Amino acid sequence: MSDVRPHPAAAADDTQLDEDDRLRPEFVEEVLDRVEAGDAEGARALVEPLHPADVADLFELTPADRRPALAVAVADLLDADVFAEMNDWVREDLIDELEPAQVAEIASELDTDDAVAIIEDMEPEDQREVLRAMEPDERAAIEEALSYPEESAGRLMQRELIAVPEHWTVGDVLDYLRGHDELTTDFWEIYVVDPGHRPIGTCKLSWVLRTPRSICIGDVMTREQTLIPVDMDQEEVALRFQKYALISAAVVDGAGRLVGMITVDDIVHIIQEEASEDALLLSGVDEGDINEPVLDSYKSRVRWLISNLFTALVPASIVYLFGGSIAQMALLAALMPIVAGVGGNAGTQTLAVTVRALATNQLTRSNTARAIGRELRVAFLNGATVALLIGLGVSLVFSLTLGVSDATRLGLVIAAAMMTNVVVAAAVGVLAPLTLERAGADPAVASSIFVTMITDSIGFLAFLGLATASGLVG
Amino acid sequence: MSDVRPHPAAAADDTQLDEDDRLRPEFVEEVLDRVEAGDAEGARALVEPLHPADVADLFELTPADRRPALAVAVADLLDADVFAEMNDWVREDLIDELEPAQVAEIASELDTDDAVAIIEDMEPEDQREVLRAMEPDERAAIEEALSYPEESAGRLMQRELIAVPEHWTVGDVLDYLRGHDELTTDFWEIYVVDPGHRPIGTCKLSWVLRTPRSICIGDVMTREQTLIPVDMDQEEVALRFQKYALISAAVVDGAGRLVGMITVDDIVHIIQEEASEDALLLSGVDEGDINEPVLDSYKSRVRWLISNLFTALVPASIVYLFGGSIAQMALLAALMPIVAGVGGNAGTQTLAVTVRALATNQLTRSNTARAIGRELRVAFLNGATVALLIGLGVSLVFSLTLGVSDATRLGLVIAAAMMTNVVVAAAVGVLAPLTLERAGADPAVASSIFVTMITDSIGFLAFLGLATASGLVG
Repeated sequence: MSDVRPHPAAAADDTQLDEDDRLRPEFVEEVLDRVEAGDAEGARALVEPLHPADVADLFELTPADRRPALAVAVADLLDADVFAEMNDWVREDLIDELEPAQVAEIASELDTDDAVAIIEDMEPEDQREVLRAMEPDERAAIEEALSYPEESAGRLMQRELIAVPEHWTVGDVLDYLRGHDELTTDFWEIYVVDPGHRPIGTCKLSWVLRTPRSICIGDVMTREQTLIPVDMDQEEVALRFQKYALISAAVVDGAGRLVGMITVDDIVHIIQEEASEDALLLSGVDEGDINEPVLDSYKSRVRWLISNLFTALVPASIVYLFGGSIAQMALLAALMPIVAGVGGNAGTQTLAVTVRALATNQLTRSNTARAIGRELRVAFLNGATVALLIGLGVSLVFSLTLGVSDATRLGLVIAAAMMTNVVVAAAVGVLAPLTLERAGADPAVASSIFVTMITDSIGFLAFLGLATASGLVG
Repeated sequence: MSDVRPHPAAAADDTQLDEDDRLRPEFVEEVLDRVEAGDAEGARALVEPLHPADVADLFELTPADRRPALAVAVADLLDADVFAEMNDWVREDLIDELEPAQVAEIASELDTDDAVAIIEDMEPEDQREVLRAMEPDERAAIEEALSYPEESAGRLMQRELIAVPEHWTVGDVLDYLRGHDELTTDFWEIYVVDPGHRPIGTCKLSWVLRTPRSICIGDVMTREQTLIPVDMDQEEVALRFQKYALISAAVVDGAGRLVGMITVDDIVHIIQEEASEDALLLSGVDEGDINEPVLDSYKSRVRWLISNLFTALVPASIVYLFGGSIAQMALLAALMPIVAGVGGNAGTQTLAVTVRALATNQLTRSNTARAIGRELRVAFLNGATVALLIGLGVSLVFSLTLGVSDATRLGLVIAAAMMTNVVVAAAVGVLAPLTLERAGADPAVASSIFVTMITDSIGFLAFLGLATASGLVG
């Protein structure tokens, strides 16, 4: 957690922020115009009253090629809090412009977790240089954090925390906190540790405040606490915070010793990231950030498009096999995408629901069978409805051109194909992510390409196959 | 925020929870078996050590028809905290089974926000009955909360908070907190108010703890604070908490008076919900909850499928117009879904990125033009790559059957169609959500159906049109 300066009162200045709390385009323009005109003092005067989060936004909203000039103009406002709030890509860009000594200075002002966030993405050589420029103890703390796997609790935690022995009274705790200026000022809970520095309890600050000085802290604390292993994945950490409504939690090493603390404000970003990560993965995007360089976006997205190109060969081959039927009745080619498309849509619905239920731990082995049954029941109702609509529509519309008998047959064929495809779509939409999860993979990755391949294939196969088998063509 | 009992130490009992902190299926089975066997005492013994969040999970993992028997067996463990943690659908089901007096008793134990969450979804008549059974002041607080719009700050906030006058010393505050048992025990910040009960500053508890008794609270607090208007939408509240890294925030009425407080633990659920809501909406699902009744899921999903059925008529009509070309060369019908499908995928990618950027306030009028330009550049690279691959592949594969000249022409046609479709897909993928947003609608709603309609139509039109115009057929 960083010592973020509090935000100016909400209604302070309507010229900076719009009603949705976003920087006004006119304000951004005005700042950049002053920078361009060489009026650094004027630009600074505009930026100075902003909250660090808004200064970070200002950089994100500035075109990449105008950011260095802005950075020079407001250099002294670019403190650690601003960097902590900045988008990863924009920060990396800006950090690249700074000298290692400057980066080291900024990192020293931050809590370990924020410092690690800035340093972890640097090139190994630049990273070494920055670390060399830091104080030995700060350096050691960051090097230790970097020794933990990426996206683990060890990277998220800060080392700055308050830990006291069990036998202290509330008065001892108050005197300790008032008497030691070097202690962190921002914390929400106090950890009670045994002589081996293993956490044995947690005490909310509100409990400390409401208890007389003479009472022992061991009698105020709760012994029941959620301990986070230092190597736990950040997604898992986020789920624990959410499930148990935590404000902060102690992080312990393999031997059970207290090594750090994670606070909820750092978790909020992860919950948001993880929840939208699944949405992006389902859409075939790895990093859905508008600040990502074009070439990086190209590389991550084209992979999916090429995969899609190959999986599309399967349904295409099925259509190819029915070339004779289509040559005889080109109308089939016009109707088949409807069957495939609605099936794809139904599959995507089931997929989205299943991926979300897995991500939030709502779907476990206890209720898997029930969830599958539920999706299939919804699919039968959905399939029956759209099959009825398309079947009736097709029979009516084409009774003039094809005659009532063939039009009715075509209507029955498309209805049966639609029903089949919607039910298969639901089955695949729920089974694909479940299978990936059981196999230890991310249920959102590649699921949608696979589901679309199946719904396209079954849509074409059922429709063209039934049309041919029913004697409509062939 | 509810007074949630702390969680048993992480490693307490491996028979209950698996390594991902989910209830083990064997444990759930064992509890249900004992309930079935009439051994309520035995079931109770198993459930008693669980954290309220896990008791809530136990109900979610139990089939709906076995929940009432479970509820009777462990009735005395079903306290307010359990209901606060329970999935909305499951809770509603269970609340329906309870007498209004029982619901009133549970609601009385909760902070306003949690009580409102339980009561707001009840039938109006049951709601009135529950309110009648409550104490007058609790009833008044809940009735006031219910008078605010759904999903607004007024529904989220709790009335239980600590507010003190500016002239009090830290010592006064400590004495006040220690001397008044009726005050809330769980809070993270103290609000300083003027005589008109308007907030003039906020003080973190850690600052109170680190300050000597004689210092005035007005000198410890920060005057800069984020005030939440009582009618602010919960999504906006969540964005403020995230942007300014808030732990709690004061809620003010139209006259600027302090009327409540929102804490981050209630926001964490909303951030998760709002982030996954967009993913669900993009996939054509309104409520993506596996506990939703089948008929409700059917109603919400079939709307999208029927819309999809109608939008699919546009691309189908385009194919129909080219019936002559297809009858002449059925191969076109096999290849056209590839162009449409890859285009659809490219459109979905852009759509997902744009919707996320809008939802997180990263995309504003300041950088809209830049974001569109960026997506188009990525699209040109993507389009060129897949066009090259499909063009070469088609030319090579069909040179044997069609001859080199026609195969090359077909390759060029499909490459040009693919390039066109991927670029159009990106343009629509970014413009559709932007247009919806400008119009005041949710950018995620219906975007994907619209994008798919366009990419199918352009895919078929470009491919079949170019094939015909190039003299390949017709």
